[in-house]
Amino acid sequence: MIRIDLNGDMGESFGTWALGDDDAMLRHVTSANIACGFHAGDPTTMRRTVRLALDRGVAVGAHPGYPDLAGFGRRAMACTPDEVRDLVTYQVGALAAFAAAEGGRLAHVKPHGALYNAAARDQRLADAIAEAVRAVDPTLVLVGLAGSELMAAAERAGLAAAHEAFADRAYGADGHLVPRSDPAAVIDDPARAAAQAVDLALHRRVHALDGTALTIRADTLCLHGDAPGAEARAAAIREALARAGVTVARLARAAR
Amino acid sequence: MIRIDLNGDMGESFGTWALGDDDAMLRHVTSANIACGFHAGDPTTMRRTVRLALDRGVAVGAHPGYPDLAGFGRRAMACTPDEVRDLVTYQVGALAAFAAAEGGRLAHVKPHGALYNAAARDQRLADAIAEAVRAVDPTLVLVGLAGSELMAAAERAGLAAAHEAFADRAYGADGHLVPRSDPAAVIDDPARAAAQAVDLALHRRVHALDGTALTIRADTLCLHGDAPGAEARAAAIREALARAGVTVARLARAAR
Amino acid sequence: MIRIDLNGDMGESFGTWALGDDDAMLRHVTSANIACGFHAGDPTTMRRTVRLALDRGVAVGAHPGYPDLAGFGRRAMACTPDEVRDLVTYQVGALAAFAAAEGGRLAHVKPHGALYNAAARDQRLADAIAEAVRAVDPTLVLVGLAGSELMAAAERAGLAAAHEAFADRAYGADGHLVPRSDPAAVIDDPARAAAQAVDLALHRRVHALDGTALTIRADTLCLHGDAPGAEARAAAIREALARAGVTVARLARAAR
Amino acid sequence: MIRIDLNGDMGESFGTWALGDDDAMLRHVTSANIACGFHAGDPTTMRRTVRLALDRGVAVGAHPGYPDLAGFGRRAMACTPDEVRDLVTYQVGALAAFAAAEGGRLAHVKPHGALYNAAARDQRLADAIAEAVRAVDPTLVLVGLAGSELMAAAERAGLAAAHEAFADRAYGADGHLVPRSDPAAVIDDPARAAAQAVDLALHRRVHALDGTALTIRADTLCLHGDAPGAEARAAAIREALARAGVTVARLARAAR
Repeated sequence: MIRIDLNGDMGESFGTWALGDDDAMLRHVTSANIACGFHAGDPTTMRRTVRLALDRGVAVGAHPGYPDLAGFGRRAMACTPDEVRDLVTYQVGALAAFAAAEGGRLAHVKPHGALYNAAARDQRLADAIAEAVRAVDPTLVLVGLAGSELMAAAERAGLAAAHEAFADRAYGADGHLVPRSDPAAVIDDPARAAAQAVDLALHRRVHALDGTALTIRADTLCLHGDAPGAEARAAAIREALARAGVTVARLARAAR
Repeated sequence: MIRIDLNGDMGESFGTWALGDDDAMLRHVTSANIACGFHAGDPTTMRRTVRLALDRGVAVGAHPGYPDLAGFGRRAMACTPDEVRDLVTYQVGALAAFAAAEGGRLAHVKPHGALYNAAARDQRLADAIAEAVRAVDPTLVLVGLAGSELMAAAERAGLAAAHEAFADRAYGADGHLVPRSDPAAVIDDPARAAAQAVDLALHRRVHALDGTALTIRADTLCLHGDAPGAEARAAAIREALARAGVTVARLARAAR
Repeated sequence: MIRIDLNGDMGESFGTWALGDDDAMLRHVTSANIACGFHAGDPTTMRRTVRLALDRGVAVGAHPGYPDLAGFGRRAMACTPDEVRDLVTYQVGALAAFAAAEGGRLAHVKPHGALYNAAARDQRLADAIAEAVRAVDPTLVLVGLAGSELMAAAERAGLAAAHEAFADRAYGADGHLVPRSDPAAVIDDPARAAAQAVDLALHRRVHALDGTALTIRADTLCLHGDAPGAEARAAAIREALARAGVTVARLARAAR
Repeated sequence: MIRIDLNGDMGESFGTWALGDDDAMLRHVTSANIACGFHAGDPTTMRRTVRLALDRGVAVGAHPGYPDLAGFGRRAMACTPDEVRDLVTYQVGALAAFAAAEGGRLAHVKPHGALYNAAARDQRLADAIAEAVRAVDPTLVLVGLAGSELMAAAERAGLAAAHEAFADRAYGADGHLVPRSDPAAVIDDPARAAAQAVDLALHRRVHALDGTALTIRADTLCLHGDAPGAEARAAAIREALARAGVTVARLARAAR
């Protein structure tokens, strides 16, 4: 049986400010990455989003970011590995408490924004994050960019590593995502995104913009919830995966 | 055997700013209330303080406060019961993660500053805090002002309640602490503070400023670490308690 | 010539989070109260909103609030008069810099949310705010609840005081706004709101819910931008005022 | 007449947390760089520091930093030039308001920490800062690393540029400061620091660690207030400058 997880970022409102349509996205994803207060997500939003995900049977994950509300965690910050370890511990713990309080259990951790990017490239930061996650709960799954430093760090720490790929983003021949500054970066067309999702799930393969076939491990696909047409694309992806015989299911937590 | 716990607030540095002499206070207390990031205590300070307490065999507790760094959590804020519940859940979870990561376990929760005062008087806020603590971990001990609404709420929630009294603060005949604006509010003299500690521990009694004998339940005494002479006073209290045959020991976590 | 100012709260986005339709409201108001970073409004939002207001010929004002992003400045905070004076100085200065940088000039100050309410009732806080405004620039107009402590404080400080009334809120027979918990609190109907605006502008009078005629000074009317139907109501108010011969114009800055 | 300014960072306390001995440093400097709330310095601390500086006849300057209290503004952050321009405008305006409120006038701006370093190297950020300062008040002096991008940007913007050098830091043969990781980085010895100050003031020259004589423009010397022995070193520097006939005086504000 071939299976894949679909994950989405959630709970990125803050106080009076609403962002995203979590309710809609929860109809499509199997894993929710929930903001933990540093880049978005006040405590009340965190609880509400955890409850919503649990009600839908969606796996609850922590989505820790840099302490930068004004920049939404998207600005790189020169934090030391120790600082990164500690801010991940803090945010994972906070979200785990809401999961427990609502009768659930934390399933995974996926860094957000600039922290995600830094963890993909920088081995010391990657190890700091993996170490933080392992020390809080070694059964947590660590989600990160497929083939990145973070995935290697998860292996070193003895954590289950979930490699993430993208159905709605174009890849270059070098295996990297085409940067958003390029008009071809985002795959708006639901049919194309769905085809890329099936290719990733069935064949661990993606075709770069120039046609090159790339091998890529995809344990989970990221569904972006904030773009126009997001829901239509998400629905098309789920339908295509089902038709291709791929089981869409949450990531397996490791045994303790 | 008569026993009492001695608790102290810790980890109230923030980033580059140091506050208090945690190292010294940890020689005297059996329970450490560790700031959780909202009124003080960045993630790295939290980890360091947790580790220090565990190394000394001191019980690790969460010390959640209002989200007010500039005011050190000492300014009352009109948060709703739901908001209070959620900000307590958040902070308790964050500290519990550091306790777990450092090989320990969270033992108790004591609200800080204006939140402590609000929880002592306001039943709805007290219930919100007790509910937050219970939902995260029902074996946690909830520490609050002796005889206050928070202690009643702990009972209602089925939590172990630790009533707190003060060896170094004067009481009025009405049972309330003499406000700090009164020059007699603080008991500087180590001998007098030690005598009041023994009276509280042995006889559950304190003499008000006017001589009235008051009955007060004291499961734990608060040792203030930031005042001049704090350490001498703490040492005098411990010595007097030992001489009086009182066992100074951490609070007992409830069975799950 | 009878004249009145129409003011609206603006620039209450924060980073990635958008709030309100400033562009639409700027078609109707003559004075913009722009958030200053403590309850909303990051620096980039502040500049953009200032520029937008200046482009439309709308007067630029500072809208300082309590330091409480998560609560949007709507939660009362027990700040001392000195703290309030200083946080108003800070925020007014920040907005004045954007006004200067964009070739304009700060015209007025209107406290936000819980600070507005506290300033209406508490003489010491009202004096602290008036003193802060006067010390930064004595030609600034101070906007506050009609007949409130803040207006008295403005007079004592020698500042121009602009008394604010509401076209879209119901008044009780005691002259206070009907609280929002009452279903009759908000006047949704554009025609009724417009009639109340004309009554306030022409006759300095408002009819309470029970029909009592109240005398009320209204130098400026607050137009709420975030409610459904806000723009239709604003348009109806402007049209009715014009028909009644009332000149809608910004507040006059005092001579230095 | 040969003259030089001595500047020091001030007002870097935050709320309950104290840092530095501003009172002592104000006896030695002629220009105070006052933190503006983003890396340190709450509004009440800002006012108190401004008043203290004005009382001593010390020039009041803004010391804006990145929005990073936990990191004290020392962590690089990937802010865009527009974001940097806006956060400088904001902080300069806030401090200018305190200067005005206390009867003084803002004299200069010196970026703090990671922002200082970024502005020294990155032309676009340097231009953004210079543009922000000029737009708020073109008579302000912009202080930055001698010979750096920020000084070039000040010239381009038509601002008075004050090149800063260091009496208590060792220089490499390449003209850069020896990094703090090197044990020789800091010049603790008051006599050596004083000699370097005189060399800089009289001859616009500094000797690198290897003896190379470097030419360096020094309009102002930075006195570090937080290191042990800081005050003795500051006193030695002032005395040596006086003996060498150098006038220690604040920077001249440009004519409007």
